[in-house]
Amino acid sequence: MTKANRGDLFDPQCPTRRLLDRIGTKWTSMAVKVLAEAAPDEVRFAELRRRMPGISQKMLSVTLQSLARDGLVARRVEPTVPPRVHYRLTELGLSLEGPLAALRHWAERHMSEIDRNNRLEDARSSAG
Amino acid sequence: MTKANRGDLFDPQCPTRRLLDRIGTKWTSMAVKVLAEAAPDEVRFAELRRRMPGISQKMLSVTLQSLARDGLVARRVEPTVPPRVHYRLTELGLSLEGPLAALRHWAERHMSEIDRNNRLEDARSSAG
Repeated sequence: MTKANRGDLFDPQCPTRRLLDRIGTKWTSMAVKVLAEAAPDEVRFAELRRRMPGISQKMLSVTLQSLARDGLVARRVEPTVPPRVHYRLTELGLSLEGPLAALRHWAERHMSEIDRNNRLEDARSSAG
Repeated sequence: MTKANRGDLFDPQCPTRRLLDRIGTKWTSMAVKVLAEAAPDEVRFAELRRRMPGISQKMLSVTLQSLARDGLVARRVEPTVPPRVHYRLTELGLSLEGPLAALRHWAERHMSEIDRNNRLEDARSSAG
C-alpha cells in the first residue's frame, strides 16, 4: 500500500477520524469480542444481544449495520419464517480484535484507579 | 489487584463502559499522541490546538478536562497575565498511548479498504 492510500488521523479531511469514533465505542468493542470468540462460527442476533447485557435491539442493529458497512462483519439471512440472521467477523474484522482487546484490557485494568481519580477531582472541584 | 477491583466491560453497571467511550474517541487519541511525543515536557493549550487541526477551542477544553478528571493528564497554571496553562501526561496517561496507538495504526492502515467497503455497501443498498 502506498503512502497516499494510508489514512492520517491528523488530516481533518481524512475519514480515519470518523472511523476511529465508530470502532472506539464500547458496543463495537463488545460485539467484536463476542464474534471473535465464536469465530469461525456465526452468531445469531438474539445470541449477540444476550451476550451484550444492556444493549437495546435498536442499538445492536445500528452497531451491526455499521460493522457490516465497514466490511468488518458478514451477515447471512436464513430464509426461515421469521428469517434468522447470522453474523460472523470477516478477516478484516478479526484483525481488529487485537487492538480493541488491548484498549479493553487497559480500561478494565485501570478502572478502579480512574474511578478514584474521578472522585478526587470532583471533590476538589466542588471544594474550589 | 483483586478480581473485584478489575473492571468488567460486560457488566452493565461497570463504569468501564463509559470509560471506554471516553478514551476511544479521535480527540482523546490525538491529544494523548501529541502529549506522549512531547513527554516528559509539557505542552501549552495553544500548541495542542495547533497540533490537532479541526478541533474547536471548546472541544479541546472538554477533552482536556475529561483527561484531567481521569488522572491521565496533569495541568499546571502559570500565573502570568493572562495565565498560561500547561499540560503533560501522567504515568497513567503514558500507559494509555500504547493501546491507543495500536488502534490508531489499525485505522490508518485499513482506511482505504474500509472506504472501498463503504462505497460498495452503499451502492448495494441503493440498488436493493
